[in-house]
Amino acid sequence: MKPHIVILGGGFAGMFTARELKKKLGDAAEIELINNENYFVFQPLLPEVGAGSITDQHAVSPLRFLLQGVFVRKAKVDSIDFDTQTVTVFQGVQRRPTEVSYDHLVITLGQTVDLSRTPGLTEHALTMKTLDDARRLRSHVIERLEHAEVTQLPEVKKAALTFCVIGGGFSGIETVGEMKELIDRSLKYYPNVAPAEVRVVVVEFAARILGELPEELAEYAAELLRKRGIELQLGTGVLSATATELRTTSGEDISTRTIVATIGNAPSPLVRDLPLALEHGKIAVERTLAVKEHTNVWSLGDCALIPMRDDPQRREDYAPPTAQFASREAKLVAENIVASLEGRPLKPFRYASKGSMASLGAHRGVAQVFGMNFAGPHAWLLWRAYYLSFLPGFATRLRVFLNWTLDGLAPRSVVQVSAYTPPAARYALFRAGDTVYRRGNRADSFFTVISGKFEISMPHPETDEETVRAVGPGAHFGERMILGEYRRRADVRAVEDSRVLVLDRDEFMKLADGFEAFREYFKKYFEETYGSKWTPPNSAAKAE
Amino acid sequence: MKPHIVILGGGFAGMFTARELKKKLGDAAEIELINNENYFVFQPLLPEVGAGSITDQHAVSPLRFLLQGVFVRKAKVDSIDFDTQTVTVFQGVQRRPTEVSYDHLVITLGQTVDLSRTPGLTEHALTMKTLDDARRLRSHVIERLEHAEVTQLPEVKKAALTFCVIGGGFSGIETVGEMKELIDRSLKYYPNVAPAEVRVVVVEFAARILGELPEELAEYAAELLRKRGIELQLGTGVLSATATELRTTSGEDISTRTIVATIGNAPSPLVRDLPLALEHGKIAVERTLAVKEHTNVWSLGDCALIPMRDDPQRREDYAPPTAQFASREAKLVAENIVASLEGRPLKPFRYASKGSMASLGAHRGVAQVFGMNFAGPHAWLLWRAYYLSFLPGFATRLRVFLNWTLDGLAPRSVVQVSAYTPPAARYALFRAGDTVYRRGNRADSFFTVISGKFEISMPHPETDEETVRAVGPGAHFGERMILGEYRRRADVRAVEDSRVLVLDRDEFMKLADGFEAFREYFKKYFEETYGSKWTPPNSAAKAE
Repeated sequence: MKPHIVILGGGFAGMFTARELKKKLGDAAEIELINNENYFVFQPLLPEVGAGSITDQHAVSPLRFLLQGVFVRKAKVDSIDFDTQTVTVFQGVQRRPTEVSYDHLVITLGQTVDLSRTPGLTEHALTMKTLDDARRLRSHVIERLEHAEVTQLPEVKKAALTFCVIGGGFSGIETVGEMKELIDRSLKYYPNVAPAEVRVVVVEFAARILGELPEELAEYAAELLRKRGIELQLGTGVLSATATELRTTSGEDISTRTIVATIGNAPSPLVRDLPLALEHGKIAVERTLAVKEHTNVWSLGDCALIPMRDDPQRREDYAPPTAQFASREAKLVAENIVASLEGRPLKPFRYASKGSMASLGAHRGVAQVFGMNFAGPHAWLLWRAYYLSFLPGFATRLRVFLNWTLDGLAPRSVVQVSAYTPPAARYALFRAGDTVYRRGNRADSFFTVISGKFEISMPHPETDEETVRAVGPGAHFGERMILGEYRRRADVRAVEDSRVLVLDRDEFMKLADGFEAFREYFKKYFEETYGSKWTPPNSAAKAE
Repeated sequence: MKPHIVILGGGFAGMFTARELKKKLGDAAEIELINNENYFVFQPLLPEVGAGSITDQHAVSPLRFLLQGVFVRKAKVDSIDFDTQTVTVFQGVQRRPTEVSYDHLVITLGQTVDLSRTPGLTEHALTMKTLDDARRLRSHVIERLEHAEVTQLPEVKKAALTFCVIGGGFSGIETVGEMKELIDRSLKYYPNVAPAEVRVVVVEFAARILGELPEELAEYAAELLRKRGIELQLGTGVLSATATELRTTSGEDISTRTIVATIGNAPSPLVRDLPLALEHGKIAVERTLAVKEHTNVWSLGDCALIPMRDDPQRREDYAPPTAQFASREAKLVAENIVASLEGRPLKPFRYASKGSMASLGAHRGVAQVFGMNFAGPHAWLLWRAYYLSFLPGFATRLRVFLNWTLDGLAPRSVVQVSAYTPPAARYALFRAGDTVYRRGNRADSFFTVISGKFEISMPHPETDEETVRAVGPGAHFGERMILGEYRRRADVRAVEDSRVLVLDRDEFMKLADGFEAFREYFKKYFEETYGSKWTPPNSAAKAE
């Protein structure tokens, strides 16, 4: 029987591991890669997708195309049993469990974002980790410009035109640089928006940006971003966020509808629950990339803590979570798996970084390569060339290159192709004093109070007399949609800092229609609250 | 005061009307276009987006870019008051109502899809009307290939590889041609899928396809599609659909996971509810394009029934709903609005079609131009050239051209960039005998029964004895997720044709967490059903 090597995850680490193994083992082993998506994401290009200088399809490549001869399984990994050497996945429409056994297992599941340490960020911040995130950011920014163009309320316009990025590392800086360029290049299509009305802010806890780069390069980058009108709030922490506001340690409450969080890396839930030792939220591995206390389980990439010396002490003694390192780790893990299959000794991981780079948008960048510093257009060109060479597949490379070229010639498209629809049920925070809605607004969601307190003012439906009532945890408002109302009849205001669950009109109406207990609850509620008889909707009666 | 001309809708009719008015009136009038999206969709290219031969961004163009000098408002139209000459829209995050008054109003709201006449189509068919639809189709087809590649169940594989298109008009035929090409070109990446396992079917009620084209061209097209392995079921109607099956008048129940419906045009809800006379679901207009009994309200494009002679009798006496006609109608309506502003007489609509064309995918097409018939590669090139010339904006034209060129050179990408997420709450139909889920499957949705009957078999949670119970309307199943269970403990099967509401795990759990009445209902339900005490989740306790 051929050995079966299973790789979990299709990012840089997983994809390169599969390629290296295939190259070394050919048909001598069965290599299988399991990933949630059928494509590899070229992570460093996400800010460019977010700004529309390349389209989303150009930042990804099909795993099947990159990994010919490797069995690619698009499925969700549920659990790993190290004793029976089995991975359980769910696949297909009915979500049937399938068991995949392995001789060697490579875990490259990356990291996820966990913003739960700062109240309101999980609920109200955008992130920049996946392709969807990038598309959503672009769509979100354009939506704000669209709204700023037509609104007649100055405070609404101001919030719509204030864009905040949390974190001044590579991801935060590349995101803000690209975002500013997108806004600058789009403004000519929004005649009612003056450039001076736009405010773009980076909030960074450290005293400087780009901590991974030498101080003088970071200083150059900071200077350049400031010149382009980006405000850098350094040494500033984030206290909390709501749908309309970002509160920082500087004492300022920034009124904004756009918060992008590039902080908060955390292990994926699957990795977190594995019976493996985690250090700093990562899987502890030997220098050989073997998971501690295992001989046929390996881990690399962002999900692993990889020592680069036998007695690691400082942060620099561990491999940084970059594509450059992941591709080197992949080479070594493939070598070591082959060595292990052949009973030869394993090698330890060692690699010296060739340098690092950041794109700042608007044709500028900073780079440190082989110890030399570059800044400005040269560094930016270097950045593009480096990543272009890294791109897998000639077709993708050509497409991205053509896109980049066209981007220089043609106007930036403000098309908002992926209107992001938020989850039908979602949590939201309001601060004391915030308005939830006003009478006359379109009624398109239902609210339940989880914590805090709200004041509801409305004319009584029968006597028309203005009534005010305060409601707390367990209460709900906005349920009058069920009566067929499309406009709000009440003003609702938070009187304490509060947390709610929001349910979209469509989902609410479907539950009222299709879930008897839900419908009966509201029937009783309306009778008790208003003493009125009410005939709820019910498609059962209509059903054929 | 300058006259204010408001155009509702940004399709071919609306976009060209705004352009023509701007050209004729310059700054002598305020022209405003209101649309739900900020982009114009090049509708004829949607099948190509659906097949990935061009990316979604290349089938659209920003309205602001096409309509410089026109005030573009991205907003949802709520209502029109013809007496006060006011349009009410909702815009922004809080969905505030805004009133827009007009001197002249142009209604170009197109049509929507209504599949409700055939049971199950609304719930289970994909459509091809919007950009999202096209993206979703592509993603859906690739998902089926991914699943067919890994499943070990022959009947699941067969259903995954059966693709049905309802309707043999332009849209249906172009869609099926492109879809087949996508599948054929992708198969090399799916080594476990043999070409002979793929089945692609068109179901058309009429005796032939492409009713709008001359018989010999339609015959050529049919022959070609058949040669490419597409099955044409002509003279066949659709009776009903479920998530796993399409039932037709031929007596066959086609086991399939993919149903694309290109039928069922209907007025948009807004048009339907206007106090205007509708004929065949369209707004009745004079030959001048003025809405009947109005002098400052106009309508054109797909939402209007436009007579081309004073005494229209047959279908051919009305303008067909094509881009070619819409652009001509736009020219006339602009002329007539200017004439009306200047007190001059209005002109009637007259236009003779220059021809019509259909692309069949795989570099073949059919065309009738100036009375001459073309078929094969020439017709296909003509189709591409015609639509390329039609594309607005040089940048878009260049991008699409480059994409088309690359598509010939490079392998088709099987990247599934827009994983379509269905609504969190949705209706579904099951036929008697259908399995809903089996024990061991991942538990990721909750079901309520609207009509029909289901049989639930499971071991009793305490005694472990196998129990079977039948449930009907008002009942629900799958609620054990609330107990923290991730795997199904029961087998559920429909014993009658049934209709259910499906709620995703995530939304269900949020409601259980955040909606007290919902949580209390299940608490009581579990106590009454199993006699067990149960502590429901509640984030209120955890909330800060």
